[in-house]
Amino acid sequence: MVTPYSPRPLRSSYTFGADVEITCISPIHEAKEGELTFVANPDYRRFIKTSKASAIILGEESEDALVPQLIHKNPYLAYAKIAQAFYKPNAGPKGVSDQAFIAADAKLGEGITVYPFAFVGARAKIEDGVVLFPGVYIGADAVIGAGSVLHSNVCVGDGVLIGQRVIIHSGTVIGSDGFGFAPGEDEIVKIPQTGIVVIEDDVEIGALCSIDRAALGETRIKRSAKIDSKVHIAHNVEVGECSMIAALTGISGSTKLGKWVMMGGHSGVSGHLNVADHTKIGAMTGVIQETTAGKTYMGFPAVEAGEWRRRQVHFKRLPETEKKVKELEKRIADLEKKLPKTEGEATC
Amino acid sequence: MVTPYSPRPLRSSYTFGADVEITCISPIHEAKEGELTFVANPDYRRFIKTSKASAIILGEESEDALVPQLIHKNPYLAYAKIAQAFYKPNAGPKGVSDQAFIAADAKLGEGITVYPFAFVGARAKIEDGVVLFPGVYIGADAVIGAGSVLHSNVCVGDGVLIGQRVIIHSGTVIGSDGFGFAPGEDEIVKIPQTGIVVIEDDVEIGALCSIDRAALGETRIKRSAKIDSKVHIAHNVEVGECSMIAALTGISGSTKLGKWVMMGGHSGVSGHLNVADHTKIGAMTGVIQETTAGKTYMGFPAVEAGEWRRRQVHFKRLPETEKKVKELEKRIADLEKKLPKTEGEATC
Amino acid sequence: MVTPYSPRPLRSSYTFGADVEITCISPIHEAKEGELTFVANPDYRRFIKTSKASAIILGEESEDALVPQLIHKNPYLAYAKIAQAFYKPNAGPKGVSDQAFIAADAKLGEGITVYPFAFVGARAKIEDGVVLFPGVYIGADAVIGAGSVLHSNVCVGDGVLIGQRVIIHSGTVIGSDGFGFAPGEDEIVKIPQTGIVVIEDDVEIGALCSIDRAALGETRIKRSAKIDSKVHIAHNVEVGECSMIAALTGISGSTKLGKWVMMGGHSGVSGHLNVADHTKIGAMTGVIQETTAGKTYMGFPAVEAGEWRRRQVHFKRLPETEKKVKELEKRIADLEKKLPKTEGEATC
Repeated sequence: MVTPYSPRPLRSSYTFGADVEITCISPIHEAKEGELTFVANPDYRRFIKTSKASAIILGEESEDALVPQLIHKNPYLAYAKIAQAFYKPNAGPKGVSDQAFIAADAKLGEGITVYPFAFVGARAKIEDGVVLFPGVYIGADAVIGAGSVLHSNVCVGDGVLIGQRVIIHSGTVIGSDGFGFAPGEDEIVKIPQTGIVVIEDDVEIGALCSIDRAALGETRIKRSAKIDSKVHIAHNVEVGECSMIAALTGISGSTKLGKWVMMGGHSGVSGHLNVADHTKIGAMTGVIQETTAGKTYMGFPAVEAGEWRRRQVHFKRLPETEKKVKELEKRIADLEKKLPKTEGEATC
Repeated sequence: MVTPYSPRPLRSSYTFGADVEITCISPIHEAKEGELTFVANPDYRRFIKTSKASAIILGEESEDALVPQLIHKNPYLAYAKIAQAFYKPNAGPKGVSDQAFIAADAKLGEGITVYPFAFVGARAKIEDGVVLFPGVYIGADAVIGAGSVLHSNVCVGDGVLIGQRVIIHSGTVIGSDGFGFAPGEDEIVKIPQTGIVVIEDDVEIGALCSIDRAALGETRIKRSAKIDSKVHIAHNVEVGECSMIAALTGISGSTKLGKWVMMGGHSGVSGHLNVADHTKIGAMTGVIQETTAGKTYMGFPAVEAGEWRRRQVHFKRLPETEKKVKELEKRIADLEKKLPKTEGEATC
Repeated sequence: MVTPYSPRPLRSSYTFGADVEITCISPIHEAKEGELTFVANPDYRRFIKTSKASAIILGEESEDALVPQLIHKNPYLAYAKIAQAFYKPNAGPKGVSDQAFIAADAKLGEGITVYPFAFVGARAKIEDGVVLFPGVYIGADAVIGAGSVLHSNVCVGDGVLIGQRVIIHSGTVIGSDGFGFAPGEDEIVKIPQTGIVVIEDDVEIGALCSIDRAALGETRIKRSAKIDSKVHIAHNVEVGECSMIAALTGISGSTKLGKWVMMGGHSGVSGHLNVADHTKIGAMTGVIQETTAGKTYMGFPAVEAGEWRRRQVHFKRLPETEKKVKELEKRIADLEKKLPKTEGEATC
């Protein structure tokens, strides 16, 4: 049987104000003494009075709270930042394993960690503080910016440029060839994919994503974009700053996403499109036309969410509507029978 | 050219009853002498009389069969069990390769196999009989239960607990960070994902799946669940016992699937939902509300399959319905012309 | 910050006709002197006159062109072939790394490259000129045909046969077990997947695809098929010659695709179907019935594209149609009021 779950101990504690020591962050209805909690969703304000937490992060002051309050206009953001201070990931080994492969002409920064079975190719540059987990592959001429962490079995192709503090989860492939082919009569000829991928600073990419290199030029993921697992990003795509893309989503070739775009799970955008800033794309939605900034889209082909919802209501009523049309037809036939024939219709 | 296919020889033979030696299992219309066959689908009972097989597994006795019959109420299940007895996977090497990396404080059971380039992290526990193929990564504090097999390049993150007799296919990632972020004004802050993943006994997971660790607490896949390739399971999800999930499916954060739930390919469930026991979810279907036990759901947003089919019929007839509405409008206009105007409508 | 993009220099130059030296291929509105360009899309013929390119590939001769013209009936194909002549991928190391693992009884051809941390299993055959990147896993008895390239972390299971000049991108898994199980009452029994996968000559497969081995017999990808990233191909599927399959697509068990079939992103085909030659399947489309050769299909469940488009128009008009039905109902009621009651309806 599976060993029962024992939660991983937090690795730090902090004193909070004069005399409150905090050892942990917990949801408001589970928090115990010595723990910090938060209210981001107003529905949870009702728990403030009874919470056992020793301190609380709130959006605005509450008379109900009997413990120290930390007030922040975005309590969820404050929680995230404090949680980062508490959370220390397992400190692994430091240094470069002699079971790794480092090309003779690769350039290695200070304080890096290279685990066994990681591979660093010719002329690649690994900047200060980078961590390369086991099975990571770094192609020739690639650059991994300072402080970035590449989890196990991440593959980074030749010439790919990765910024600072980037996190890439296991199995993700950056810089595979784009899907570019010229069909002939009895053959299909590959178009060499000679561009690169650029991942800017503070991007995070989930597990098992594929981000293809450009045919010519570059595929670019801009600053602070967050990408979930199993997302596919085709050649020459640009993902704007702070965009967030949920799992199993695909973006076709040469499409440009603006900044702060949100895409739900299993969604897609077709090729050569502009998706405006702050566009929201629902789950299982397929966008095939340009979008308007700030609007939400649903369905395939995607339409504005309000329109999509209205159509869904009518779609649901369709059997009833059809039944009514049949009734009306009958009532019209009855009416027609009762009316005298006009001349043109005279019986023969 | 590709070498022509030569089927892999079975590695065992069994005597069946007094004097029938069986060397192979084959479909009923292909079976030859010395082979065992089965009828799971009643449509195939018509082949019983003419089959060349030397023995046959049936749900109920048949007068048509001229060879020994093995009767089982679930012949497909009986076939599966017998096939397992016949099939012996390639016996690989035994022992721990000196080209693998094993942390000094990892605990290794008896009879395990660790291939070259597998990595076992600090304090990890590898129980008896486990096989770790090349490129497998086991994070710190992880536990791999007795008899489990992790195929090439599987990644298991820190603290993940895997039960007994679990099979995980190549490239799958267990314990990557959940997709949890707090958006600020000009930044997006990561919420540390401090929970774990628990995979219970007898689970099988296909190739290139991602199962994220919980934000807090655990993500759990319960006993005997079977997961196809490229499935994404988000943080804090629970998959119930004996549930079966087809390829390219996604389950969003904190959703709980009951037991014996079936999900078709390319389907999805949104977050924080309960999917009742024995729910069936069709291919390309997106469930966004709680389900009723034993019911089948289709479409996006998902509705009960009967309702979905009815709407499809009406949807198909929609052009015709619209045409009829136009005709009725014309007939009504004709009727209106023939009737005398009432007072309020008097011509001026 | 990310280092600014510096394009990778092309590695060859060619003289074109008597006195034009070409160093690069560029899009027509970006090409500079010394560069070759092409017009595949007639819309771009308007750039011919003003292009700075030193030579141009065209479908038919143009009086506007002031530079040498290369005429080919399929200019895009000609461009692809010429681009291949220009493009030389980074020449990596040659030979077999002593940090790779090669089984003692594996057979290695001439001129192969095996990077560190690649694994070649028992009796596997690696033909001439093959390149196995780091982290590649080749199972027992597998064959990799001459000139094939397997990028980092590709997994090839036992007994899989791969043809010549096949390209497989990073992280792809060929020969994982098919999803075959027999549900019992309190257990689910695995059906051994004892078949193989055959990949024919000149196939290209993107990153992170999974192609499952057959339950019995084979899964086969035929000559020159091109498969994008994250495609899932189930057990016993056959993909026909020159078929092209876009990303995030799934093909269910035992389905046969004809030749020159095209599938859009996020599409799927259910099991045990025949998809006829030259069928086109749109993005996010789910095919659940046999198709007609040469036709295009859209939607779920898929119908012919013309029918799908017509239904979409009516679907869009559905709120308006329903409104009209309500108006007609009112007009009929008005008409009914004006007509004298017939006997059966006489007031009491």
